[in-house]
Amino acid sequence: MYTPYHGDGPYPASGAWTPDQPVGDRKFFTFATDRPFSLECGERLSDVSVAYETWGTLNADASNAVLVCHAWTGDSHASGPAGVGHPTPGWWEGVVGRGHAIDPDRYFIVCVNVLGGCQGSTGPASPHPDDGKPYGLRFPVVTIRDMVRAQAHLADHLGIDTWRAVVGGSMGGMQALEWAIMFPNRVGALLAIATSAEASAQQIAWGAIGRRALWMDPNYRGGDYYDAGPDGGPWRGLAIARQIAQVTFRSDTKFNEKFGRNLVRDNLFEDGIDLFSVFDVEGYLDYHGDKLVRRFDANSYLYIGKAMDLHDVGRGRGGFDKAMARITAPTLTVSIDSDILYPKYQQEMIHAALTGRDPRTTHVEVSSPEGHDGFLIETVSIGSAIGSFLERL
Amino acid sequence: MYTPYHGDGPYPASGAWTPDQPVGDRKFFTFATDRPFSLECGERLSDVSVAYETWGTLNADASNAVLVCHAWTGDSHASGPAGVGHPTPGWWEGVVGRGHAIDPDRYFIVCVNVLGGCQGSTGPASPHPDDGKPYGLRFPVVTIRDMVRAQAHLADHLGIDTWRAVVGGSMGGMQALEWAIMFPNRVGALLAIATSAEASAQQIAWGAIGRRALWMDPNYRGGDYYDAGPDGGPWRGLAIARQIAQVTFRSDTKFNEKFGRNLVRDNLFEDGIDLFSVFDVEGYLDYHGDKLVRRFDANSYLYIGKAMDLHDVGRGRGGFDKAMARITAPTLTVSIDSDILYPKYQQEMIHAALTGRDPRTTHVEVSSPEGHDGFLIETVSIGSAIGSFLERL
Repeated sequence: MYTPYHGDGPYPASGAWTPDQPVGDRKFFTFATDRPFSLECGERLSDVSVAYETWGTLNADASNAVLVCHAWTGDSHASGPAGVGHPTPGWWEGVVGRGHAIDPDRYFIVCVNVLGGCQGSTGPASPHPDDGKPYGLRFPVVTIRDMVRAQAHLADHLGIDTWRAVVGGSMGGMQALEWAIMFPNRVGALLAIATSAEASAQQIAWGAIGRRALWMDPNYRGGDYYDAGPDGGPWRGLAIARQIAQVTFRSDTKFNEKFGRNLVRDNLFEDGIDLFSVFDVEGYLDYHGDKLVRRFDANSYLYIGKAMDLHDVGRGRGGFDKAMARITAPTLTVSIDSDILYPKYQQEMIHAALTGRDPRTTHVEVSSPEGHDGFLIETVSIGSAIGSFLERL
Repeated sequence: MYTPYHGDGPYPASGAWTPDQPVGDRKFFTFATDRPFSLECGERLSDVSVAYETWGTLNADASNAVLVCHAWTGDSHASGPAGVGHPTPGWWEGVVGRGHAIDPDRYFIVCVNVLGGCQGSTGPASPHPDDGKPYGLRFPVVTIRDMVRAQAHLADHLGIDTWRAVVGGSMGGMQALEWAIMFPNRVGALLAIATSAEASAQQIAWGAIGRRALWMDPNYRGGDYYDAGPDGGPWRGLAIARQIAQVTFRSDTKFNEKFGRNLVRDNLFEDGIDLFSVFDVEGYLDYHGDKLVRRFDANSYLYIGKAMDLHDVGRGRGGFDKAMARITAPTLTVSIDSDILYPKYQQEMIHAALTGRDPRTTHVEVSSPEGHDGFLIETVSIGSAIGSFLERL
């Protein structure tokens, strides 16, 4: 269900994310207070906070912990109802939760807002230690590996030496892969869903165009828009960037089924054919653009997008094969057959590199018209694949 | 070959299309001087000019004329070297020209810049009769059917009652389809390549996002930018719109092969990982954005894009089946198997509606990694399909 955009002309984004995020169920862990946290880019951060949520109880020998990693605009609220600090229910309801594949009655489940994010973890909207003003573009570029090393600090803090499993879809799968490569002894099982071992040229292209739209927005002001108020930020640029992503997240089949050639105004051809006539699919894009603008920081969108572009397990490790050779964990890879953004050959490539190494390593292809978003939507199929795999461990 | 963009930050489009287009090989035909030309939207235009080029000689009974229809940003220069009025060689070299499938030694070949275009035909950059200033957004919305009816006026003028064949790829194929539906007695054969009978929701989505980028450009000024000079128009917005299209014109396979994860600056990881690091594929997108800005009017891009969104052969005709039932011409449909913008099911749907009606009607699938642009690039395969089909007529 969405409220279609009925306006004429340009996109009227209004209202927006502000850095005053209530705490809700989130917990916070701060590290790098004694010595700075070195990033892959060579820069360093101090006093890094990560926001996280947990479900279930860590058992006596700390052997039942599962790390769930979120995607681009996700956050730590993987499961549970909407509430303070998270206006919508958990993004992986049906997969994480009581009675589901990742069940808090069996596992101690942890989900961490990524470094560079804007839902409680240190990111470009956080205060710069020098002047207390938001970092903006002064924030150093972060990589998936930096996100993972921040999560490792949290694991130490929580007393988790080894994760029973590290699970993620899309960018979450990139983190899961890096966990299994960077810390093979700390990962009992790897679950990489609708993800890739390295960003492809087409994935980079989509992200790059979104960035250019954001940069073009006159309200972006070089990333220094935090004092602009809810009507003055680069919401139109961010909305366009999101709209591009939104098409790649779905499929042609799904769009035909959901929208076809329906019009927001069904009197189009009585009133005359109008340059600004709006098709249903446009209303959907405007809705998704506007929705993101209200809940997400534009700079975080940019930094996290860049982290995905820079994702390449082979970087600095002698290439893909040598990087993958470090993985010892049994691995589940899952593809969505209609995924146009992370096509199934990318997960098959991961599986092919690992197959034969552990008899439990397996690949599942989910048949669905939902496209890349299938990893969030097809909770029954995805949950079943995850549940069966975890049972066999 | 392209000159990559080495800059930091936003896209620096510079230089741009201006309405002072030299004539070169183009000829002009003006109609609607006595009574206005009524458009599908209900508005009317007077003194409509269409720019066109011809190759070969019309035979005595005017039975050897072939109409070649161009795509979104194409023009009348389908064949021949670069020269005055067209800075690049013909867009269908290898298909149209001596020794090729559409040979001026056999056919009288006509290619017309579409109504709404900016390469000599009346469009938003043309002077409004009221004040002599460019129409801008005062230009009425035009449809594929309006483009075809303008071409029909030219055919009358040239003494061509029946085309031996009407040929087009992408938006050119939409025109060819409408020719065969609107004027079944004037079309001896229909050749519809990498096109669709109606714009799909995904196609509309891509166009819609590009329009929003153009509208967001502060230099767009509601379409009234013609006096802004070569540095002041909405070139960044137009470039972003083009970049979106450019990804949909190619394929993941081609992008992997052509760019992979190469960097414009190959010292990226010596200098540190940079938020503004530029991958090769980004340089390619910037090049294509900049290239279009130099040769095409932003408003024409918008109007022609809208004409494609509005394309629906079934509109006002009782639906797809009834519209297709009007087609009497033997029909060749051609698909490119890697086309993600006009997937092959769209051409198969056209073929399925026509099959069995004429024994010469046939469908050819071209295997190519080039994506939608394969209709321009795969001149050997496409030319061979066209040549064989024309031989059988």
